[in-house]
Amino acid sequence: MDIKGFQFSAVEAAVKKPGRKDLALIFSEVPAAACAVFTTNKVKAAPVLLSAERIANGAAQALLVNSGNANACTGEQGMLVARETTHLVAEGLKIADEAVQVASTGVIGVQMPLDRLASAMPALVEGLASGTLDDVAEAIMTTDTFPKMEARSGQAGGISYSVAGIAKGAGMIMPNMATMLSFIISDAAVEPAVLDTAFRRGVDASFNIITVDGDTSTNDTCLIMANGQAGNPPIAAGTPEATAFGELLHDVLLSLAKQIVKDGEGATKFVEVRVTGAADDGDAKRAALAVANSSLVKTAFFGQDANWGRIFCAVGYSGARVDQSRLALCFDDVCMARNGLFVGGDAEARGTEVLKKREFTVTVDLGLGNGSATVFTSDLSHEYVSINADYRT
Amino acid sequence: MDIKGFQFSAVEAAVKKPGRKDLALIFSEVPAAACAVFTTNKVKAAPVLLSAERIANGAAQALLVNSGNANACTGEQGMLVARETTHLVAEGLKIADEAVQVASTGVIGVQMPLDRLASAMPALVEGLASGTLDDVAEAIMTTDTFPKMEARSGQAGGISYSVAGIAKGAGMIMPNMATMLSFIISDAAVEPAVLDTAFRRGVDASFNIITVDGDTSTNDTCLIMANGQAGNPPIAAGTPEATAFGELLHDVLLSLAKQIVKDGEGATKFVEVRVTGAADDGDAKRAALAVANSSLVKTAFFGQDANWGRIFCAVGYSGARVDQSRLALCFDDVCMARNGLFVGGDAEARGTEVLKKREFTVTVDLGLGNGSATVFTSDLSHEYVSINADYRT
Repeated sequence: MDIKGFQFSAVEAAVKKPGRKDLALIFSEVPAAACAVFTTNKVKAAPVLLSAERIANGAAQALLVNSGNANACTGEQGMLVARETTHLVAEGLKIADEAVQVASTGVIGVQMPLDRLASAMPALVEGLASGTLDDVAEAIMTTDTFPKMEARSGQAGGISYSVAGIAKGAGMIMPNMATMLSFIISDAAVEPAVLDTAFRRGVDASFNIITVDGDTSTNDTCLIMANGQAGNPPIAAGTPEATAFGELLHDVLLSLAKQIVKDGEGATKFVEVRVTGAADDGDAKRAALAVANSSLVKTAFFGQDANWGRIFCAVGYSGARVDQSRLALCFDDVCMARNGLFVGGDAEARGTEVLKKREFTVTVDLGLGNGSATVFTSDLSHEYVSINADYRT
Repeated sequence: MDIKGFQFSAVEAAVKKPGRKDLALIFSEVPAAACAVFTTNKVKAAPVLLSAERIANGAAQALLVNSGNANACTGEQGMLVARETTHLVAEGLKIADEAVQVASTGVIGVQMPLDRLASAMPALVEGLASGTLDDVAEAIMTTDTFPKMEARSGQAGGISYSVAGIAKGAGMIMPNMATMLSFIISDAAVEPAVLDTAFRRGVDASFNIITVDGDTSTNDTCLIMANGQAGNPPIAAGTPEATAFGELLHDVLLSLAKQIVKDGEGATKFVEVRVTGAADDGDAKRAALAVANSSLVKTAFFGQDANWGRIFCAVGYSGARVDQSRLALCFDDVCMARNGLFVGGDAEARGTEVLKKREFTVTVDLGLGNGSATVFTSDLSHEYVSINADYRT
């Protein structure tokens, strides 16, 4: 896919150790409209603090990102490194420091190797001549097993434009250590208010409905830059083009979010948890998240055990309004329980067949109202424990 | 230890499968003052619903308890079984149905085998002649690897009395499937208001500060019966005896709670998480629970990885007020981080040595105020996943 006016680069800076590309750069040839959402964790990494400050003006032209070190819990020195590395990028690109966003992922509490980062900068900027978005997607991986990318095209005013995105996750969605990072670029011309609304709605309906382990990182960042180089008339609020752009952006974000769940650490299952019949949508989301985050439910998924009782139990402590005599549950189209009770017959055998699949849906109906919500999650496996017991070694 | 006026029995009813004692009875020869706390889960097992109704009058004389089946999500039939089995016990003991409490633990969503339970009742009542509290402690085990008991003695008005307790846990504290059950008996004479206050305070400062996996069961029950058979003058409110009784009861409850954490499913570590310097005690508890429930923190404990950054991260998303530049953390007496930063030197090596121990303390100081809280937790191991992936098979 051709995204006009963006350049990419990735090099080996040996941030944590040598042997792979771990420092990457995305550059827009002209200033781009930009917005971002960051972790709600009160312990925020230095790059999050610096980027949040800079994005306030709604523009950005470059993104510097590294894996191997989160630059979190690193204090003044961490801020100094974030400022200095983005300054070097800005110098190399001949743009203002404030136009450079920065993101990091990796281990918490270790100071960044400023000397190695600085040494890698000239090659990083030079690499823009020949790099691809794929290179960046690979460089930001930590425990991810595959790079995550998605791209779509649309039209506005008879002109084609593109939206492409990359992401990393693998650890923890509501993510933690391994951090959720996602960067979206588009060559569409979009009015700032349209971009902001479409982006925040899209993130809410994608990254905010996935969960791997319920932890929320110090570094989570999702950023979009739209540089207008497609040449379309700017997409304005209230137009069909704005609606279409929003849908297209949501498709890209949701695809990336699902890829993150599928690559959840040690994940062997991809599960859609759908709650219907809740008193309201808030209750539905609470119930769906409780199910999706329950260690007991997730180990049962791993064990391919059609243990619907654990799911009702999670719904029961979710905080949602629940009348246990109205609960119903299906695995895909196999109804396991109705009116709070096991349906009997061959449901156990048929439910177990569903859980043997790589992907399936759990639908819980609360029987109280019209509230509904969907959350995507993975199972909890031996591999998850292995990865996270030995993460730093 | 001699607890006057209580009798015990346990038999094999083959609730789930034959081969072990799974049905038990505690009987007080005279009506006892009693109170109980039950799960806050909105999906409540039949025995919880029935017992909560009956305990409202502050008295009980017998407790019927089974393992192998939770009698949860079993609807009207489940209530009928709870009523019928307690009726059979009442008949056998010649007491009122309402004086019989009932508790269950095991799989959710399977109907109880009423025929087998009924058949076992005569032997259960007969067994009171020769049974011990140990027999009951063993009969209520599910995935527990050892029975949990504690006993203490005190004096009131020159007369000795005893308090003894048993518990099961193993699964999930804030427990779920495997359920937390605890039964306390005492031969002290205690005014109902004193018993109630001492019991609720004791539970708050024991079972409510432990966590294995953050799930909360449909069946959790903690019950106390005090029958006055020691012959002491009733312990009255506002007296030193009331204070002493409360402390003694708390000791028993805390010991049982700690045993539950030590026997957490697959647990290889017992960890005390202490938060100090919080803006208030509520913030301290929120922060301590977030650390104690984090899958990432718990897998790091399992991996003996002194990963203090993950702990700061959990504190950061706990909801507690946090200033990351004031955070400090120690493993036992090894300080790892101060002012939000790694202290350097040989802290990494010394911290790792602490994490190799079977038991250790994590202290996080928030540097904001005088709020403090302590929570006990275990690690998250491969064994936890194995147990819960295959629980029903």
